[in-house]
Order: sequence, then structure tokens, then C-alpha cells
Amino acid sequence: MNFDVIGWSSNGAVRFLDQTCLPAKEIYREVRTIDDMVEAIRSLRVRGAPLIGNAAAMGLAAAAADAAEQGTLTPEWIEDQAGRLEAARPTGADLRWALERMRGVAARAFEAGSDGRTVARALRAEAQAIMDHQIAMCRAIGEAGTELLEQDATVLTHCNAGALATGGLGTALAVIYVAHDQGKRIQVYSCETRPLQQGARLTTWELARAGIPVTSIVDSAAASVLGKGTVDLVLTGADRIAANGDVANKIGTYGLAVLAKAHRIPFYVAAPQSTFDPTLAFGELIPIEQRSADELEAAPGADVFNPAFDVTPAELVTAIVTDRGILRPPYAEAIKTLFD
Amino acid sequence: MNFDVIGWSSNGAVRFLDQTCLPAKEIYREVRTIDDMVEAIRSLRVRGAPLIGNAAAMGLAAAAADAAEQGTLTPEWIEDQAGRLEAARPTGADLRWALERMRGVAARAFEAGSDGRTVARALRAEAQAIMDHQIAMCRAIGEAGTELLEQDATVLTHCNAGALATGGLGTALAVIYVAHDQGKRIQVYSCETRPLQQGARLTTWELARAGIPVTSIVDSAAASVLGKGTVDLVLTGADRIAANGDVANKIGTYGLAVLAKAHRIPFYVAAPQSTFDPTLAFGELIPIEQRSADELEAAPGADVFNPAFDVTPAELVTAIVTDRGILRPPYAEAIKTLFD
Repeated sequence: MNFDVIGWSSNGAVRFLDQTCLPAKEIYREVRTIDDMVEAIRSLRVRGAPLIGNAAAMGLAAAAADAAEQGTLTPEWIEDQAGRLEAARPTGADLRWALERMRGVAARAFEAGSDGRTVARALRAEAQAIMDHQIAMCRAIGEAGTELLEQDATVLTHCNAGALATGGLGTALAVIYVAHDQGKRIQVYSCETRPLQQGARLTTWELARAGIPVTSIVDSAAASVLGKGTVDLVLTGADRIAANGDVANKIGTYGLAVLAKAHRIPFYVAAPQSTFDPTLAFGELIPIEQRSADELEAAPGADVFNPAFDVTPAELVTAIVTDRGILRPPYAEAIKTLFD
Repeated sequence: MNFDVIGWSSNGAVRFLDQTCLPAKEIYREVRTIDDMVEAIRSLRVRGAPLIGNAAAMGLAAAAADAAEQGTLTPEWIEDQAGRLEAARPTGADLRWALERMRGVAARAFEAGSDGRTVARALRAEAQAIMDHQIAMCRAIGEAGTELLEQDATVLTHCNAGALATGGLGTALAVIYVAHDQGKRIQVYSCETRPLQQGARLTTWELARAGIPVTSIVDSAAASVLGKGTVDLVLTGADRIAANGDVANKIGTYGLAVLAKAHRIPFYVAAPQSTFDPTLAFGELIPIEQRSADELEAAPGADVFNPAFDVTPAELVTAIVTDRGILRPPYAEAIKTLFD
């Protein structure tokens, strides 16, 4: 992509594009403390399930390096700080996946008797490996999914499951980018994705920069767009996928899946292995983040219900595009193979 | 209701609550020219299909009085100015209905040889009669529909089909107000209704003022709210209903109807006779207003598709609550009886 989503600054801090400022301004922030990374994740300066995992791992590594300099890097420090990062947003699976890798590296280094600086170097190398791995998974998702897009395909997507959500090519948008690179003409309807407008602000921004035709619609216009018969498929990312294939994703995804079925349009999800959570048998067990009422408008005296995610039952999902290929129902067996 | 939506000021102008300022501020505007009334309707300072009809009729009467004073009130003036008002917003049926009544009164008065001031007085009386008629129709809708709401009913609604849309009790919300007055505990989910937030700004405002519990949600959260099984019915207003029962209403209504069916929840529409258009055989013939791209957010280079309304096919509508009772399928016959 022709922009940086996340990386290291020369002084060892995590440098990332502040997504709350897009599309108006491209502002980069540098963060090197756990407090600041938790704030960046909670406030969606960095967002997208895979990118949250990367960012948390990098933030832990940056803060660990400082702790090592101060002689305070201990197994307890790792446990406490990783726990704080993990609690920043509850729904996405990649966050825990990335932090588990970081915890494992730290534990092995401490067990081997390494000093703080050596542990910190190992953590930084692991954070980099996680990012490299996610970028490779994005590319693999795109290559696995491109067969779903024919020449002149029209795709409807929700939220942002692109470069801005991953640091790589994205998940849902990786499929579109790879097809586009192969010379297929693809056009995209982007649901604006209230309340935080990740579709309107981020998906339109990165697709327009890539030269892919994209049309922004309000979320509630998706039904009439699907009803016109010009959309070939609905394609979204995921925040967590249960062992049976139930998909937690941005609020509104479930409605799109129901509408896709009613209009006999396939509904696809794209996600890397790190988004799957084989420890949860089905979607109702996935914790759904409730966000502040301040994100919505309402008159005084009115209540607000503001869940950030919903759960789409596996039976509404036509297929799941992963870095290990396209999974089709029954998902329980297919998902097991990801962890072989 | 404990607020005025529209009325006459002492100087003969039309005085109305500027709905673009709600819920933050209650600001009243006075308008006495066609230009200003067209602007007020286009910019949604007055909105809601029935209220647009009232406002246009009152604006025509106010401007006609000034024209009579200047000696310029002629049949041609009426035709030109009524045509400009009618073109202000294309989808709602009540606008044309109200202006047809005004045109008829003017034509009869001119044919009888009345002078300009007499014609203007007849127009003002007719505008008042239209408003009185709409208020009575709202009450009748509420009384007809209350049987649909049981004790402790939870209703999901979209946009604003309340006092602010009619000057009376509303259409969909009239059903809720009458049930509430009968002592039934009713609670309401209000979809915010992007892009102009009539649900979040207006429905929450008037229901909260009436002491009816209301919860604001983003439009795309409706699916998961309906999926939880706590909503008893979906109830919306309408902007135009074709002869076969197809319903044009605020963008998003069609999606709610599909979602209601998928969850086996009844989907009701409430509208006065003036919203029915027996001249259009089916919904695809209803003109759908396309509004400015400026109402949506999108990155530079992205397109915007911003239809203000969609069409819900009659087969998704469980029943239509009218001032003449509850219509049930097949609608073609039932709608004919409204015009007997």
C-alpha cells in the first residue's frame, strides 16, 4: 500500500497512523507506554482485529525495552501489562493471540535466565514476527479469495477490513486488492458503519487511493442496494470466529448476512487464523463490547444501546476465506484443520 | 402534545418549529413566501409526509394573502406557486394531496368571481381545514392501531412518524401515544435514521417528553435487537403507499421489513388516507428522492449514493393502520375502500 499503517520509530516507539483523523488528515502518533497504547486501542486510533493484535504486541515490546533500561522488567511486569492490553477491547481474538505469543517468548527468555535487555530484544523480535506473519496472512487471504471475484464483480462490504485494519493488505479488502492486481474490474459499495464511520472514513479512503471504484452508502441503504440485484457478493472481515463458524464482526454484519440470504446473494467472511477462537464453541459465548452512549445522538431522557459488534450464525455464512484457503460448511471440521 | 409543531403567527405568516435544530434547541421560524417555504421543506426544517402537506398548504395561503394585497393573485399565480411547492420533495404523497385541495378551492373561488382577498381567505380556511383534518386522522390512526399493542409491548421504529411529522399525534407514534394514554406500558427502540438522524434527534425527543421509555440505536443494530427476541413489532410511518400496498418510506424501512420477516416479527405501517396514492399501481412507480452527497461522509475520490427513501413490497407488510381502520392483505381491495 502507498501508506504506512504501523511501524517502529527510530527511538524504539511504536509509530502508527491515527485512524480517528482520517480521511481529513494523515497524522502519525508515537507511543511507547502501555497507558498510551491502551488509550490508542480503546479510542480506535488503531483498530481492526488483526492490527490491534500487532499494535498491542509492539506496544508491549516498546514499553518492555524502557522497563529493561530501568531494571523493572520482570515476569510479573509482563503479566500485568499484557493483561492491561488484553482488556483494552474484549471482542477481537487477534489481541489475545498476539499477547499469548508475547507472553510465551518472555516466559521462555526468563526461564533461560536472560537479563532484561535480552528479554526486551526477544519481545521486539516477536512483535516484528507477529506483524510479518499478519502481513503474510493477509496476502494469503487475498490469493485464496480472489477466485470468488469474477470480472466486473460488485462487492458490498461493511466497516473496514483493509490495510488499515491489518497493516498488510487487509482481510476482506485483500481479496479485492489481489483481484484488482490481477486486472479484474471490481467495484465496491461501502457501508458507512455507524457510529464511528470506519466504512465512510477508512474503506473509501484506502480503496480510492488504490484506484478501486467505491460508493459510500448509509448502512440502512444496504437493503435497497442488495434488492436492486447489482451486488454479486457481500464480503466482510471478522473480529472473532467461534469453533462452529459463528462470526463476531462490526455491528450491522448480522443484518447484512440476513439481507444477503433474503436476496440470494452469497455472504463471505475473510479472516486470518489468528481471528479464530477454537476455545469458544459458538458465537453466543463471544464477549460483545458495549461502547459509550456518547458515540450516539439522542435527546435528553432517552437511553442508548451501543454494542460494537454482533454475531452472525454460521448458517448464514457462505464461506470463510482464510490464509489457509477457503473454508465451507460444515465449519466445525474445517476450522479444526486450521489448528492442525 | 406539549409543544407546537406548526401554526399561524399573528401577522399571517406560517410559524413552525425548525426541526433541524432539535433536540439541542427549540427554535421557531416564520415564513410567508413560497421561496422560504420551499427552502424549509427541502432542508427538512419541516418534514414528515403529512406535515409537509400541511406546511405547503399554509405557505401557499400565507403567500396568497400577500399576493392579494399586491393585486397579483391570479389562477396562474396559484398554478405556478403550487407547482413550485409540489416539486420541493418528490416522494411523499400528502404534499400533492394537500395542494390539490388548495388548487380546487382557488379554482372554485376564481370561477365564482371572487376578488383576490376573498380567494386568499378561502385558501387560508382550506389550509386550516387540511391541518385540522390531518390532526383528526392522526388521532383516528392511534385509536385504530392501539389494539396491536399489548401491555408491556416493545416496539421498534424508524425515522420519525410522530407529532413532529404531522402536527397531530403522528402516525406510527400516534399508535404508541394512544396506547400509553390507555395505561399500557410501552417501550420503544428508535433507529437513529442516517443520514439526517430523525430517529435519534426527533423520535427520542418527543417520546422522552411524553414519558415513554425510548432507546436510541444505530440503524445497523436493529438486526441484533430483533434477533434477541425482545421486540414485539416493528412499526413505521410511510411517505407514499401505492395502490397495491407497496410502501415508500425512509431509507432503511425495507431492510427492517426483511429483518422482521426473518425473525417472525410483525411489520406494521401507519399512515393517513392522504399518504395513499391510488394512481400508482405499484411501488416501483413511486419517485425516490436522491439527496445530496454532502449528507454523507466519504473520502475524496469516492462516490456517494444517497436515496432518501426505499420501497417495501406489500407482501412484507403485516397490516397498515389508517384513520379508517386496519388494512390487511390483499391490500389492493382494502385500499380501494379508503377512496369510496
